[in-house]
Amino acid sequence: MNISPRAELLSPVAAGTAAEAATSDEAWVRALIDAEAALARAQARLGLIPDDVAQAVAGARVDPAELAVRARGAGNPVVPLVAALREVAGDQVHAGATSQDIMDTAAMLVATRVRETLLADLDRTAGAVADLARRHRDTPMAGRTLGQQAVPTTFGLRAAGWLAAVAEARDRLAAVRLPAQLGGAAGTLAALGTTELLPLFAEETGLAEPVLPWHTLRGPVAELGAALALVAGALGKIATDVVLLAQTEIGEVAEPAAPGRGGSSAMPHKRNPVLATMIRSAALRVPAYAQILFAAQNAGLDRPTGEWHAEWQPLNDCLRLVGGAAETAAELTAGLEVFPDRMRANLREELLTEYVAGRLAERDGRAAAKETVAEAVREGRPLADLLPDDDRAERAGGPGAAFGVDLTKAVGPAPRLVDRALAAYAGKEPE
Amino acid sequence: MNISPRAELLSPVAAGTAAEAATSDEAWVRALIDAEAALARAQARLGLIPDDVAQAVAGARVDPAELAVRARGAGNPVVPLVAALREVAGDQVHAGATSQDIMDTAAMLVATRVRETLLADLDRTAGAVADLARRHRDTPMAGRTLGQQAVPTTFGLRAAGWLAAVAEARDRLAAVRLPAQLGGAAGTLAALGTTELLPLFAEETGLAEPVLPWHTLRGPVAELGAALALVAGALGKIATDVVLLAQTEIGEVAEPAAPGRGGSSAMPHKRNPVLATMIRSAALRVPAYAQILFAAQNAGLDRPTGEWHAEWQPLNDCLRLVGGAAETAAELTAGLEVFPDRMRANLREELLTEYVAGRLAERDGRAAAKETVAEAVREGRPLADLLPDDDRAERAGGPGAAFGVDLTKAVGPAPRLVDRALAAYAGKEPE
Amino acid sequence: MNISPRAELLSPVAAGTAAEAATSDEAWVRALIDAEAALARAQARLGLIPDDVAQAVAGARVDPAELAVRARGAGNPVVPLVAALREVAGDQVHAGATSQDIMDTAAMLVATRVRETLLADLDRTAGAVADLARRHRDTPMAGRTLGQQAVPTTFGLRAAGWLAAVAEARDRLAAVRLPAQLGGAAGTLAALGTTELLPLFAEETGLAEPVLPWHTLRGPVAELGAALALVAGALGKIATDVVLLAQTEIGEVAEPAAPGRGGSSAMPHKRNPVLATMIRSAALRVPAYAQILFAAQNAGLDRPTGEWHAEWQPLNDCLRLVGGAAETAAELTAGLEVFPDRMRANLREELLTEYVAGRLAERDGRAAAKETVAEAVREGRPLADLLPDDDRAERAGGPGAAFGVDLTKAVGPAPRLVDRALAAYAGKEPE
Amino acid sequence: MNISPRAELLSPVAAGTAAEAATSDEAWVRALIDAEAALARAQARLGLIPDDVAQAVAGARVDPAELAVRARGAGNPVVPLVAALREVAGDQVHAGATSQDIMDTAAMLVATRVRETLLADLDRTAGAVADLARRHRDTPMAGRTLGQQAVPTTFGLRAAGWLAAVAEARDRLAAVRLPAQLGGAAGTLAALGTTELLPLFAEETGLAEPVLPWHTLRGPVAELGAALALVAGALGKIATDVVLLAQTEIGEVAEPAAPGRGGSSAMPHKRNPVLATMIRSAALRVPAYAQILFAAQNAGLDRPTGEWHAEWQPLNDCLRLVGGAAETAAELTAGLEVFPDRMRANLREELLTEYVAGRLAERDGRAAAKETVAEAVREGRPLADLLPDDDRAERAGGPGAAFGVDLTKAVGPAPRLVDRALAAYAGKEPE
Repeated sequence: MNISPRAELLSPVAAGTAAEAATSDEAWVRALIDAEAALARAQARLGLIPDDVAQAVAGARVDPAELAVRARGAGNPVVPLVAALREVAGDQVHAGATSQDIMDTAAMLVATRVRETLLADLDRTAGAVADLARRHRDTPMAGRTLGQQAVPTTFGLRAAGWLAAVAEARDRLAAVRLPAQLGGAAGTLAALGTTELLPLFAEETGLAEPVLPWHTLRGPVAELGAALALVAGALGKIATDVVLLAQTEIGEVAEPAAPGRGGSSAMPHKRNPVLATMIRSAALRVPAYAQILFAAQNAGLDRPTGEWHAEWQPLNDCLRLVGGAAETAAELTAGLEVFPDRMRANLREELLTEYVAGRLAERDGRAAAKETVAEAVREGRPLADLLPDDDRAERAGGPGAAFGVDLTKAVGPAPRLVDRALAAYAGKEPE
Repeated sequence: MNISPRAELLSPVAAGTAAEAATSDEAWVRALIDAEAALARAQARLGLIPDDVAQAVAGARVDPAELAVRARGAGNPVVPLVAALREVAGDQVHAGATSQDIMDTAAMLVATRVRETLLADLDRTAGAVADLARRHRDTPMAGRTLGQQAVPTTFGLRAAGWLAAVAEARDRLAAVRLPAQLGGAAGTLAALGTTELLPLFAEETGLAEPVLPWHTLRGPVAELGAALALVAGALGKIATDVVLLAQTEIGEVAEPAAPGRGGSSAMPHKRNPVLATMIRSAALRVPAYAQILFAAQNAGLDRPTGEWHAEWQPLNDCLRLVGGAAETAAELTAGLEVFPDRMRANLREELLTEYVAGRLAERDGRAAAKETVAEAVREGRPLADLLPDDDRAERAGGPGAAFGVDLTKAVGPAPRLVDRALAAYAGKEPE
Repeated sequence: MNISPRAELLSPVAAGTAAEAATSDEAWVRALIDAEAALARAQARLGLIPDDVAQAVAGARVDPAELAVRARGAGNPVVPLVAALREVAGDQVHAGATSQDIMDTAAMLVATRVRETLLADLDRTAGAVADLARRHRDTPMAGRTLGQQAVPTTFGLRAAGWLAAVAEARDRLAAVRLPAQLGGAAGTLAALGTTELLPLFAEETGLAEPVLPWHTLRGPVAELGAALALVAGALGKIATDVVLLAQTEIGEVAEPAAPGRGGSSAMPHKRNPVLATMIRSAALRVPAYAQILFAAQNAGLDRPTGEWHAEWQPLNDCLRLVGGAAETAAELTAGLEVFPDRMRANLREELLTEYVAGRLAERDGRAAAKETVAEAVREGRPLADLLPDDDRAERAGGPGAAFGVDLTKAVGPAPRLVDRALAAYAGKEPE
Repeated sequence: MNISPRAELLSPVAAGTAAEAATSDEAWVRALIDAEAALARAQARLGLIPDDVAQAVAGARVDPAELAVRARGAGNPVVPLVAALREVAGDQVHAGATSQDIMDTAAMLVATRVRETLLADLDRTAGAVADLARRHRDTPMAGRTLGQQAVPTTFGLRAAGWLAAVAEARDRLAAVRLPAQLGGAAGTLAALGTTELLPLFAEETGLAEPVLPWHTLRGPVAELGAALALVAGALGKIATDVVLLAQTEIGEVAEPAAPGRGGSSAMPHKRNPVLATMIRSAALRVPAYAQILFAAQNAGLDRPTGEWHAEWQPLNDCLRLVGGAAETAAELTAGLEVFPDRMRANLREELLTEYVAGRLAERDGRAAAKETVAEAVREGRPLADLLPDDDRAERAGGPGAAFGVDLTKAVGPAPRLVDRALAAYAGKEPE
């Protein structure tokens, strides 16, 4: 097993994932150094510092744990980082910049890198649930509201809902603008000398150019947190449905089997929905972390006393957990087992009452129809007997045959809703 | 005093504001009835129900408090509302719809209506802070980081930051898509019969057409919450700065005076930053309410057992508090008193060290410059003496004259950053 | 103007409950006046003001909505209240006090009043679930982990868990100390003249005496929020279990039936778990509200700029929602229908594997036993055949008869755990 | 592989502290093994398993990172841990237990260990602020409400408030009961055979004995989170006050100086309140983490699908951040520099208006007194001139001399409030 950097124990949803590695302390140190190097390159392009500073910075090696402890002196890891870099790359490193320039830029670099893998995993997930929607466009199952069977739906419509949620959240995340940060001590660029540095620095980092230094204008971080919380919610929705449909007594889906997955030492028969549970464990946390980012917008004057410092870990946790959840969701949806027979077997006749009453109402009016159906239910007579012939299923087969009701009619426009969702998704798909 | 509906006691930031009225129980009942009437109109356009149902619905009067108590029977107010509407408009009301169709559509109508006034207040606020940025483009003041004077900046740059934050959050809120909701019992449209109803219903409500019923795809609500939390943060940033700058010992700004405003019964001399405090009281709460909306995305199957019901009040509180905060911010920024003399008087010579060292470094190198400045500080010599002549202010006046340093140089490109922000804002301004 | 508290639309869990009335704006105005009257009585006892002020204050009538709008002037409703009271009771009203003295004391009075009814509802709930625990001490049902049947348990043990959680949370809430607030402008008691007033004021309010004025020492409010969130969680646990057990496919419990309760206009057959859903809607919100109270502890100097103002509504919402949830839970648990036959019918043979393997392991060792059981499962042989005779159920009846396994043995010490919980509860029960 | 806990980069408040080490993955693995060993010892005491299992377990070495990755199979790290332990200590390890028994017990062991150091740091902090309260019992300073000078107070009263908050939160945390967890697969103790194991296991772990297994009765975790959030709030209050009082323009306190502490590479003159900022960065996050714990109480049936898994990291973050904040606060308060001269110099005459008006009111009545004071303020006459002679300060010195007002009278009973707080604290102090 080759683990580098170290997987962490308390969030299995992210353990060993690409997002975990991309949010590790090592990844942050890399991003911090990248930010300093980009600044040196931009300054060199303007002739402000020699050309070779950037290269010396980029090649530096710094130990994250040592930086971490020394960060207590100034309250952030950039001060000791700069000290270390100046030892190897000279006094021109970090010229005119402030710690927050580097820390915020590094955060955006980390976010950019995690986002890349995250979007890929969301695309995989969207592709997998689109496939489920297509394949099960007409597969009847019980619609369930407040835990009660309500009316028939199709599994395809459920999967189409997952698709719509994931695709929307994905696009939302992709659209978040991640700007470089550069402003100097109080965001005036005074010691940096010129606003010309802003576009050059942005270019060197690969990040967006901000209109202003945003040391205490925290919209970008809050936006990122919001987009990540939306993704977490979309994935959490899928996971919640899987968990509910995989219950022993329902058993309409199962997680993909894998050696060592979902087993229980105590209960060998169990097949736990472990992937969905892990995704949910992220979806239940991310909103709270995002909230810290929202609240941190109340940042006083030119650097706040805690609000900024409070952002780092929650932002990183959002990236890591949502990244881990997306990788997990891609695996879950790609291998999800779907059991149409069980879906059909679970259907109760009673969830056809709305449909039958609706059909009768066309002829007899709503009140009379309701009464007719209620009477049939009281008397235990099959609802199918109330329907005109062409609404009945062949006794010999087809979904709903058990009740003699043509379920393809009872699910109404559900399949056409699937088509709508697939078309909307296709409109966005790259060729 | 004409108050209708009743102002509420525990959130002065919203008391008596347009947003409070637009989020009252009366406003919700209005929106619920509007949603039912729109459905009736859409169904009449397809010939599904008679034309006169909609009119009867629209004219109905329902008591919010009675609805509220009866809402306990079904867990939502739509069930008793429909019963009441059917009494006056007949059995065809709500045909094929589910409670959530109406409740969600009403929520989006309420949101649409609050947003209208909210955007107007944000525009007023943006206009006011743009004006401050323009007027004080070059007004020097202390930049403050971690509560400490750091380097000089201009008040215009501070106001430009407020502008950027408010304008960005405003656009973000304006862009949120607010869809109608229609799906029937389990989101299949089965009892409604046809997907054709979706665009017609959306049109009749004036809301966006959703791809799918979104009963348990809560992206739209979470998005709305996120945008409102961003606005709250932008306003909270302004308020936080005002509070800090208005402190007795700093006194660089003051809230607009008004009879009965900001006084204290115990302390007649006090002029409290009441508007900013009220805005902050909203900004400190909205993130927590938005979080509930994010977490509610984990909604099981076709209607969850609590997550949906948990959304209503926090969403309404977000709308109300942010709306109240925006109205308050428009008042605060329009009348904010700015005291450039006090800003100048507060400036400490020590916050020029970075600037002076930077100027010397151009000639002597960074290390030597730092040492020269440190020595001057130790010996209590004026920093201005270290500077070349053209960096000195006329002793006779001008900002910074006190220290003999030309502050227009020391603030660096700050005024040009103001120009950038104003230009970006102008690009968005309606002619 | 006489406004009796109106039920509110967006939180059915509280609509029309005693807690809603006790947290209405009218109730707050009552408490604010009570606080002023108590202060007047305490000051009269020390001879500081005439005896008749208190009575004039107590008899005053103030319109909450008017107060609400006027609260915007000072940021809190006490300033206009004092103005109104001085009109009827003279200049001595509120002598030496600050707005926060009255507002905080009123909050504690409101909390005291809600708590009284809340504790009674928790006692009713505890009594009801204790009764369920007793009655179903030995009723076997499936234990379910991660939604999967795991091993057998008893319904009594589940109810005993509810009891332990409710009783613990109840005691926690009962133990919260609710202090009066009195300190004057900056908490020095300077204008009040003497610390002697503290115990007298506390006595007159019926609240606890604080060691110090706690204007910016918000432990008491945070503690109250924490206790309410614990209660919300205990009730949420019960509601979550009810929702899961009431699912159509499980059907082991049902909410008490009542006219108009839990029905669906669209689906006449449905019996929705409406009470549990409403309770959960509270349990999903209260933690976010409590968090605002926790965060508000970061209150600067002698009155913060927003943190205090941000507390009022969330605290009130905590009281209202938890109060409403407790009243709802008392109704839910008192009438909960339990279906032991369905519990038995739902049991899967596979959830006996742990038990059977355990019994065999005593003889053959763990590894061999596991293999024997796995083999039987693979071959589809009844697990009971592997057991010694005295572990088998009479084929003729008794729980577990279906599988030929004596379930009273398979549930292990579950019934004795019920006894432990009942004994612990009895130790606390008032005679 | 021998990995000693590494300091982490994104939370300087905890980096390198004892709490960080005690909450590391290594510490968790230690606690997990300790829990398994305690179970083995308890089972051996009942003769259920051989005596030597416990010792083999206790001596095992397991790599946290490997465990972390393998935790994805079952969703928790105990399943792979047990596999690893059985390799070295045989099949009897973990007999009859479930993963949650070990994970929850380990969490309580980690909490116990962090709490020990945390309480010590809180005691140091309380001792330091008690000392400040004593020393500055009578040191006059401006009381500040909403950022405005209001009336005089003493620094001792401020410190006494810190003391009351810390001491209360400390006692609250010390009182939290941390129970062992043992229940087996669904909390029935079935495979463990007997309730006798509960007290023995608790004894072997050193934790409290629970009435029932609490797999889905999460009161203990929520309680712990609440207590930690209260501590965070008490420390956050101190830090917030320090930050405000250390502002350049106020300068009444300064953080303890230390080499490399609070400096800024860009601005050599700055002395940033770094310790307070770090404490605040924790205080702003912990409430959100605690909220996750509160919400996780909504745990379904016998193991929830995510709520439990969502607890681990936030609980650990609460322990780590509050632990780090307490260690930081002990350092901050022990070395806090207090500047009484600056406090006196900052006092504005206007904040004596309440006092002077109060004194005059004794003679002339409230209304007349108010008018007299207002007139003096308008005319710029010294307020002292309005006072009787014995209320005036010697012109020659003493606090308040600048205005000719005897500040020891104007602060009222503030010093006696200090005495109350010190007495309350002494009542709790260990001899």
